[in-house]
Amino acid sequence: MKRREFLKAAGVGVAASAVAAPAIAQSMPEVKWRYTASWPKSLDTLYGGCEFFVKRVAELTDNKFQITLFAAGEIVPGLQVLDAVQAGNVEMGSTAMYYYWGKDAAMTFGTALPFGVNARQMAAWLRFGNGEALLNEVLAKYNSIGFAHLNTGAQMGGWFRKELKNLGDMSGLKMRIGGFAGTIMSKVGVVPQQLAGGDIYPALEKGTLDACEWVGPHDDEKLGYYKVAKYYYYPGWWEGCGQAHNIINLAKWNELPKPYQAAIQTASWDSWSWAISRYDYYNAAALKRLISGGAILRPFPADVMEASYKAATDIYAGLSQTNPLFKKLYDSLRSYRGDAYLWWPVAEGGFDNFMIQRLRRA
Amino acid sequence: MKRREFLKAAGVGVAASAVAAPAIAQSMPEVKWRYTASWPKSLDTLYGGCEFFVKRVAELTDNKFQITLFAAGEIVPGLQVLDAVQAGNVEMGSTAMYYYWGKDAAMTFGTALPFGVNARQMAAWLRFGNGEALLNEVLAKYNSIGFAHLNTGAQMGGWFRKELKNLGDMSGLKMRIGGFAGTIMSKVGVVPQQLAGGDIYPALEKGTLDACEWVGPHDDEKLGYYKVAKYYYYPGWWEGCGQAHNIINLAKWNELPKPYQAAIQTASWDSWSWAISRYDYYNAAALKRLISGGAILRPFPADVMEASYKAATDIYAGLSQTNPLFKKLYDSLRSYRGDAYLWWPVAEGGFDNFMIQRLRRA
Repeated sequence: MKRREFLKAAGVGVAASAVAAPAIAQSMPEVKWRYTASWPKSLDTLYGGCEFFVKRVAELTDNKFQITLFAAGEIVPGLQVLDAVQAGNVEMGSTAMYYYWGKDAAMTFGTALPFGVNARQMAAWLRFGNGEALLNEVLAKYNSIGFAHLNTGAQMGGWFRKELKNLGDMSGLKMRIGGFAGTIMSKVGVVPQQLAGGDIYPALEKGTLDACEWVGPHDDEKLGYYKVAKYYYYPGWWEGCGQAHNIINLAKWNELPKPYQAAIQTASWDSWSWAISRYDYYNAAALKRLISGGAILRPFPADVMEASYKAATDIYAGLSQTNPLFKKLYDSLRSYRGDAYLWWPVAEGGFDNFMIQRLRRA
Repeated sequence: MKRREFLKAAGVGVAASAVAAPAIAQSMPEVKWRYTASWPKSLDTLYGGCEFFVKRVAELTDNKFQITLFAAGEIVPGLQVLDAVQAGNVEMGSTAMYYYWGKDAAMTFGTALPFGVNARQMAAWLRFGNGEALLNEVLAKYNSIGFAHLNTGAQMGGWFRKELKNLGDMSGLKMRIGGFAGTIMSKVGVVPQQLAGGDIYPALEKGTLDACEWVGPHDDEKLGYYKVAKYYYYPGWWEGCGQAHNIINLAKWNELPKPYQAAIQTASWDSWSWAISRYDYYNAAALKRLISGGAILRPFPADVMEASYKAATDIYAGLSQTNPLFKKLYDSLRSYRGDAYLWWPVAEGGFDNFMIQRLRRA
């Protein structure tokens, strides 16, 4: 068979193959990245959301863009993901920006401002309220760019050994709670504690720790805290949603072919809805099992909520005077939040509240 | 320069180029599809969500997979999208499955079962509660496969010329409301009307129509109904969320290279969060303007909600006896809904309700 006949039989035009091959080779090269998560494998929806993301990117790029995922501690500790990305030790990571509030309090807005917004409002603010662009002003200082990735939905307030009657019961309470929320808690009398994950259960059991917070029913159930601290408080006012980001080294991002940049952006939002859906699905069933197992659901007393809100608002006012980027983000989020919570009780709240009441009677 | 030296200088191995080019050519061919939407361009978040989707797919595939979008009526009327996809006249469409409830009542579950679930619960059921697979059992009968695409969030109950004091005021009310919801409405005394979009405003103005429903503040504001029917009722109990699907001709889907299938799936979920975020952002501000413009917000009277819920539940019981696929979907959704609405008031509702109350006092 002559060359021209062979190409014709194979269904490949000479001109097309000559033109197309270099263009494709340039736009879809083989790229291998390392991806470090702040999540242990046991947080199967957050770590699982990273696995889902990696799989999607591979499918989208015909396996040309291969991202290898590492759990917390495999390359760097979970709280040092941003540092590893900034230094270029890994190309990207999945993390909660508020872990780095010590570097800049404005990082808080990337995950959850206490008494901030719920998960859908967070996505709305990120996409349409300039939130993503403002957060990237913060991350640019750390040689990084971020994309909204996973969300937990509203979290629980955590596990308490004793029932809380009022604000006075918070006084002197030793609670395992980290970061920015711990700072607010300390203003209402709590003594925040830093304990490694494995030390929490025995400390609660012995009574050297009075309370701890983690995520919500699905993740909390596996840790068994309900056996040693049965009062399960809500809501986690410091996390109306828990937003994670894919953080990428800026130089590495800029080197990436456009289709791979699109794959990261699109797969990040795909995994956003994957993760929150998985929480929404499995939290519901886990809560039922926890209650059967002896957990006692309690709302925080009204004066605890009120005092915490006031403490948080005072802290934000102070930070707004000393940190211009914090002020910029706070003003932006607060402006949307005001309108958003006028609208929320109408169609959404109206529908949900009817269904909640009606199904109780069913 | 000899051939081998040229290739070396260009950084291309002979073996690699010989192997890679055909594989890439096969996996990333040029593909052109036609995509017809049920949405007019004026529904800028639904039509815009289709534009966003098309742009994402182009970016992901380096413009090799080109999808051309048509608004409702440009190729086929908005309510005939499924028919056009089934016949292969277009490769795909964006539509609301419940438009086709006349073909099979089980289609209703693809968009919103009246008194069903909210948007996040819908996504959770679709992804983790087997919902997507069950809906595809319905669509397979129409030579199609569907992927969750856009969502409006909970919709409003619509515009009424007169205030509703109780269930009795629904009797004989001429309301522009379509499909399955119209059937339920007729059980509580309403006389459902079918009017083309442009005829609604003058009919409300003349009083030959008493009420109409559309979407929510952002879309409704543009149509100006508040000027002729100022009572704005909530919630739209027939649409706790409005879920749209990308519906694809099954034979065309099966021909598609795997990376393009992944692009459709991933960009569909990306546009899901894009659209609901856009509604969540713009509805909030639009509601404020509508109220300033004279719209009067009212919740449906309790006995209207209760009677409508009972009418809906009776209809579902009847359909479950005659339509096995309806029963299968209803049992699946209802089982998740029960758990979901036990969990919803805890962390999510607890957070939202505190914020709603607290910001009112701010």
